Amino acid sequence: MTTTNASARSLPERYRTRVDHLRAELDRNRWDGLVVLAKADVKWLTGLSSSNAAVVVTPERTIVATDFRYVAEAEGLGLEVARIEQSMWQDLAKVAGEAIGASGGSLAYPPAELTHRAFLQFTDALPDAINLRAVDGAVGKLRVTKDAEEIDAVRRASALLEGAYELVTQLGLEGRTEGEVAWAIERHLREAGATALSFESIVASGERGAFAHHTPAGAVIPADTLVTVDIGCVVEGYCSDCTRTFAVGDPSDELRRIYAVTLEAQLAAVAAVKPGALGRDVDAIARDVIGGAGYGDRFGHGLGHGVGIDVHEAPRLSRTSDDVLAERMLVTVEPGIYLPGIGGVRIEDLVVVTADGNESLTHFTKE
Amino acid sequence: MTTTNASARSLPERYRTRVDHLRAELDRNRWDGLVVLAKADVKWLTGLSSSNAAVVVTPERTIVATDFRYVAEAEGLGLEVARIEQSMWQDLAKVAGEAIGASGGSLAYPPAELTHRAFLQFTDALPDAINLRAVDGAVGKLRVTKDAEEIDAVRRASALLEGAYELVTQLGLEGRTEGEVAWAIERHLREAGATALSFESIVASGERGAFAHHTPAGAVIPADTLVTVDIGCVVEGYCSDCTRTFAVGDPSDELRRIYAVTLEAQLAAVAAVKPGALGRDVDAIARDVIGGAGYGDRFGHGLGHGVGIDVHEAPRLSRTSDDVLAERMLVTVEPGIYLPGIGGVRIEDLVVVTADGNESLTHFTKE
Repeated sequence: MTTTNASARSLPERYRTRVDHLRAELDRNRWDGLVVLAKADVKWLTGLSSSNAAVVVTPERTIVATDFRYVAEAEGLGLEVARIEQSMWQDLAKVAGEAIGASGGSLAYPPAELTHRAFLQFTDALPDAINLRAVDGAVGKLRVTKDAEEIDAVRRASALLEGAYELVTQLGLEGRTEGEVAWAIERHLREAGATALSFESIVASGERGAFAHHTPAGAVIPADTLVTVDIGCVVEGYCSDCTRTFAVGDPSDELRRIYAVTLEAQLAAVAAVKPGALGRDVDAIARDVIGGAGYGDRFGHGLGHGVGIDVHEAPRLSRTSDDVLAERMLVTVEPGIYLPGIGGVRIEDLVVVTADGNESLTHFTKE
Repeated sequence: MTTTNASARSLPERYRTRVDHLRAELDRNRWDGLVVLAKADVKWLTGLSSSNAAVVVTPERTIVATDFRYVAEAEGLGLEVARIEQSMWQDLAKVAGEAIGASGGSLAYPPAELTHRAFLQFTDALPDAINLRAVDGAVGKLRVTKDAEEIDAVRRASALLEGAYELVTQLGLEGRTEGEVAWAIERHLREAGATALSFESIVASGERGAFAHHTPAGAVIPADTLVTVDIGCVVEGYCSDCTRTFAVGDPSDELRRIYAVTLEAQLAAVAAVKPGALGRDVDAIARDVIGGAGYGDRFGHGLGHGVGIDVHEAPRLSRTSDDVLAERMLVTVEPGIYLPGIGGVRIEDLVVVTADGNESLTHFTKE
């Protein structure tokens, strides 16, 4: 392990502000240091994109531990860099021990962001004078409110999805395989400027629409049914996420009914997204509409989730969510009704919370 | 948690054989049970592709714990299924406790395949009479030797790469961005039948060739240099992996020299891949050629790795590897020389160990 010095002053302001917010958390909780491990947290906090990096933040210092592949990039960002020579976890323990100092103190770490094997290696090498505190989501909590640049990236990633849905309507769905449609969408998004998909596209027709997850690619889309198309892509490191359910031919009355109910639930819930709204209250609005129509047990997932560097992040809109919405948060609103053996509907928009309500970043028609 | 019963007899023979091999490990190590967590291990052992499944294997039973999305598929495979209702880790602890029985016993688990948070939840819910044993790679060790069907899938995934390299030579590299070339490769592979890439393609030209990792997409490929193209794709769930380094225009004498040295090292190491060879001895053959030419400190990674459901798996060819090669193992042989600020070379083939040597599954010219 070799530590190089770089003035923390040279960290760009955007990241300096974020580190300052995290230091306020340290202060509030009386932690002497915090280890940041999730790739998305490291990127948000420092600007560094690395598959192998951890950050130690103390009241005085911000040190990135990473391997030779990312040292030059990390130094270029104005970070203090500890180059990992042997093992990430042993070296990180030394960096944390040295940063907190010989007199010891408390170190918060995210237990959901390292393997148990890594935890054993880390704690083995950690000085006895350091007391670990298991803390989930210390950085994630700060990531919920987006700055203008982040909202702009998500807005552009969302705008690309409209072209993909246009393509789907132009192609026609009946008789094509779900995999063929998914690939046409991916190709369109990548060639339109997306650097990746947010997640593997879901194209689920007929009975397969009753499952919320990805299905085999070779299935042929039948006539007179519904097709759920749940897609997202990445622009400048930020994700989008949107779902539309398309009618093919002449779907049954029952399928038409669950579409209408889902749309009513979705519109009612979107209308409730505003600063001060509680995650579970927004969820309940959609759930009440679906329950009132007799499909309460056919909506088996939460209403929505935050979107940013990760496609699933805080805040949550769900039955148990205590999250309170605030301006510049981004959330999906995606109720669904799934009838096993028959078909399913999901309708999802991605909205940004504004001063007095919200604005949808996804615009493709729901009619 | 709901447990459904299915006769273990109906598990297809391929998987029954694998479960039997794993039971022999249990017996040899005197474990009363083993928890399988890695997605690739679950798939190899049972045939189930799931993002949320764990398998408990005892001398008598093979139980898959998974959520509602995968229950039907798991039952269809002839597995005993425990449907997760609340938390994977609490429910899994109950399944394992019940399978081992009230009198207790030892349970092996893979500490590198669950988060520390998950470990805490799992152990909290585990009966006191169960003693955990931390064991890495119990299933991975069995996965090293492939059956004919697995080798065939890797062979087909490897064959697709040749078309991608043909495309690269047809396109021409100079003046294109690295990202543009990477996308042309991905599009070719996907449209030729690959279900995914094994990893994000690496197209690294000029100085960027001196880094072993992925570089920004927008960089333009200059004249008179080398371009490293490291690619792989997935067919029927199995990966391929191959690297070629292309000359653009008229590269410098030094770049030509490191290409010739790397090729000599690669050919010598490939010739040494056969049953009984030790991972570190094969690594040393390539390292000696590169060291003898004065570039010993410019080959900073291991020589190669196994390939299968994961693109990086056992066995390893590296300075410290104790792995002994055997028939029907698949390994990459990929020495490289990286000169910071100047450029780099890596040449990689994927070979299958045969009765008296090896056969390369990647055939594109290295000249």
